[in-house]
Amino acid sequence: MLRNVFGIRPGRRGNGFEADGTPCADPGAWPVAIGSHIDTQPSGGKFDGNYGVLAGLEVIRALDDAGVRTERPIAVAIWTNEEGTRFTPVMMGSGVYCGAFTLGHCLAQRDRDGVSVGEALAAIGYAGRDAAPRLAAYFEPHIEQGPVLERERRTIGAVIGALGQRWFDVTVTGQDAHAGPTPLEMRRDALRAASRLVIEVRRIAGQSPDYARGTVGQMFVQPNSRNVIPGRVEFSVDFRNASATTLAAMVQCLRESAARVAAEDGVEVDLREIVHFPPCEFDAGLVAAVERNARELGLPVMRIASGAGHDAVYVARTCPTAMIFVPCEGGISHNEIESATPEDLAAGCAVLLRCVTQAAG
Amino acid sequence: MLRNVFGIRPGRRGNGFEADGTPCADPGAWPVAIGSHIDTQPSGGKFDGNYGVLAGLEVIRALDDAGVRTERPIAVAIWTNEEGTRFTPVMMGSGVYCGAFTLGHCLAQRDRDGVSVGEALAAIGYAGRDAAPRLAAYFEPHIEQGPVLERERRTIGAVIGALGQRWFDVTVTGQDAHAGPTPLEMRRDALRAASRLVIEVRRIAGQSPDYARGTVGQMFVQPNSRNVIPGRVEFSVDFRNASATTLAAMVQCLRESAARVAAEDGVEVDLREIVHFPPCEFDAGLVAAVERNARELGLPVMRIASGAGHDAVYVARTCPTAMIFVPCEGGISHNEIESATPEDLAAGCAVLLRCVTQAAG
Repeated sequence: MLRNVFGIRPGRRGNGFEADGTPCADPGAWPVAIGSHIDTQPSGGKFDGNYGVLAGLEVIRALDDAGVRTERPIAVAIWTNEEGTRFTPVMMGSGVYCGAFTLGHCLAQRDRDGVSVGEALAAIGYAGRDAAPRLAAYFEPHIEQGPVLERERRTIGAVIGALGQRWFDVTVTGQDAHAGPTPLEMRRDALRAASRLVIEVRRIAGQSPDYARGTVGQMFVQPNSRNVIPGRVEFSVDFRNASATTLAAMVQCLRESAARVAAEDGVEVDLREIVHFPPCEFDAGLVAAVERNARELGLPVMRIASGAGHDAVYVARTCPTAMIFVPCEGGISHNEIESATPEDLAAGCAVLLRCVTQAAG
Repeated sequence: MLRNVFGIRPGRRGNGFEADGTPCADPGAWPVAIGSHIDTQPSGGKFDGNYGVLAGLEVIRALDDAGVRTERPIAVAIWTNEEGTRFTPVMMGSGVYCGAFTLGHCLAQRDRDGVSVGEALAAIGYAGRDAAPRLAAYFEPHIEQGPVLERERRTIGAVIGALGQRWFDVTVTGQDAHAGPTPLEMRRDALRAASRLVIEVRRIAGQSPDYARGTVGQMFVQPNSRNVIPGRVEFSVDFRNASATTLAAMVQCLRESAARVAAEDGVEVDLREIVHFPPCEFDAGLVAAVERNARELGLPVMRIASGAGHDAVYVARTCPTAMIFVPCEGGISHNEIESATPEDLAAGCAVLLRCVTQAAG
């Protein structure tokens, strides 16, 4: 389905499909899957995504080496176009799998040169077929892409879920004026008001629980001239939180701050929401299994929230899901210098192997 | 000199020049001058500059109409290239007159097409000659280019001087990082630190006396992406004050704020001074004369500081100088909608006429 790739190691209960090629109807015969993506960013590193798929293959190899046969089949999944660098939306393959987007919508998306997803897949011989197995459980090993495990000196992150995201475009409108002749008390300085709100975004996140993040990453100042008081400033707000309720409270705080700054600084502040991803909570049993297996292997482990989106967020809408994070150097990702140690990557595979065999029986 | 234009109405003591064409050596025979500039901004209005020159001609005409002969000559001066839109430095003609720049330096300046000031003047037949009269006093009538007179409902501004200016380029260096996985306490957010400093600039100006102004007009954020914590922000600071001492204290406060924010936010803050104009104080006697003459004519008057530069700032280095401000609509200038009422413009001329005849005897 959207040419996601499933490599399946059959179990005693089959390979996840009926004899006629349709997905298995009996939940007891559904595969346990391991997966991630193999596409990357233009200047991305070699661990983001690939690690999850290679870890899956490593599990298969280990089972083969040990001659272990599981009850359920084990699938290694490669989800198409997670990064969205050529075609949007991002997390396209897992999004179609879980029903977030229709297959037709995604196949019709075009790149900058006008080539559609459908055409591009056909050109490389990956037009594929529509059948995909239903899954009993899904595990996604991934580098953390953040600095927490390294700082906390933990090898394994038992990912409790992915933070919800609410993004806003904010426009502050004041009045351009000459910086020389205009006394302070007569100014309607859009940049000063915007600066107050940048600080509010951080303050609101800082006082909120549930892994709150608040970021202003983008700002445009007009007319952006040294000796002209800015009349208009546009900036972005990116709020993230593990709890939808807390996330909503953060947004409410921002609206109140915006109204107060607008009144005090004599400017207009307009907030427009442009992205709203609800938080995703992974399966409590599988998260506990990741934690327990790490402990039993003597690996330092902690619970962690994923700040970024992953295929697992969409797959979690269809089956019990968990992610296993391993540290990456300096928390750096989406960069060619992205790095992780062989020891940490192997530790993630060891935890994965235990989780998968327990789930597959 | 640099082809400034002087139109001179002789007085009983001559025309400001010796018989051989050199400037008069006797201070008692030096002209009283009225002047401003007639160049403008690409989208400028019709009052900025022109008003001062036309007011000078109006004074000459009024004296002619009334058959009045003064002791000293009266000069109407047009200073070349005040705005600096085609050739820099700004206030070029008055700058050469007062010795701030050499004539040779300015004649050699080139526009974007490679044409020099000297070539451009020759091409329009204004190569001129080098002699310029020495002046006994100088008055420059001008629209305020700010909102204060209109707000205070005053017709005349007796300008006490021009604010000194100190401009800085500020660079804040933190660390780019992904907005999702990076917890707040691990961030080195250059935009948050810059925002704190924008607020400090305003706070420092707000608590300083002597017509303090503090403006951040320009800001550039890198990498300027919604979900990346900014690693580098560059912004401008424009401080103005009527007192050099207060201006220095403002700069010192900014340096302290920068050091504090750098330490607290884990960023580097670099301040580089790029402009330093000392404050200019106009002649106390002439400022008082403007005020007194306005009162005697029944015109509402107030003392005011010029936030912007004017030719008078340079001419004041050579002779007693004052400016007469009249209101302009909404304080708007450097814009085609720049406007001033005939009544206010005439009131400025009436005050000017009295000041000039008193100074010229």
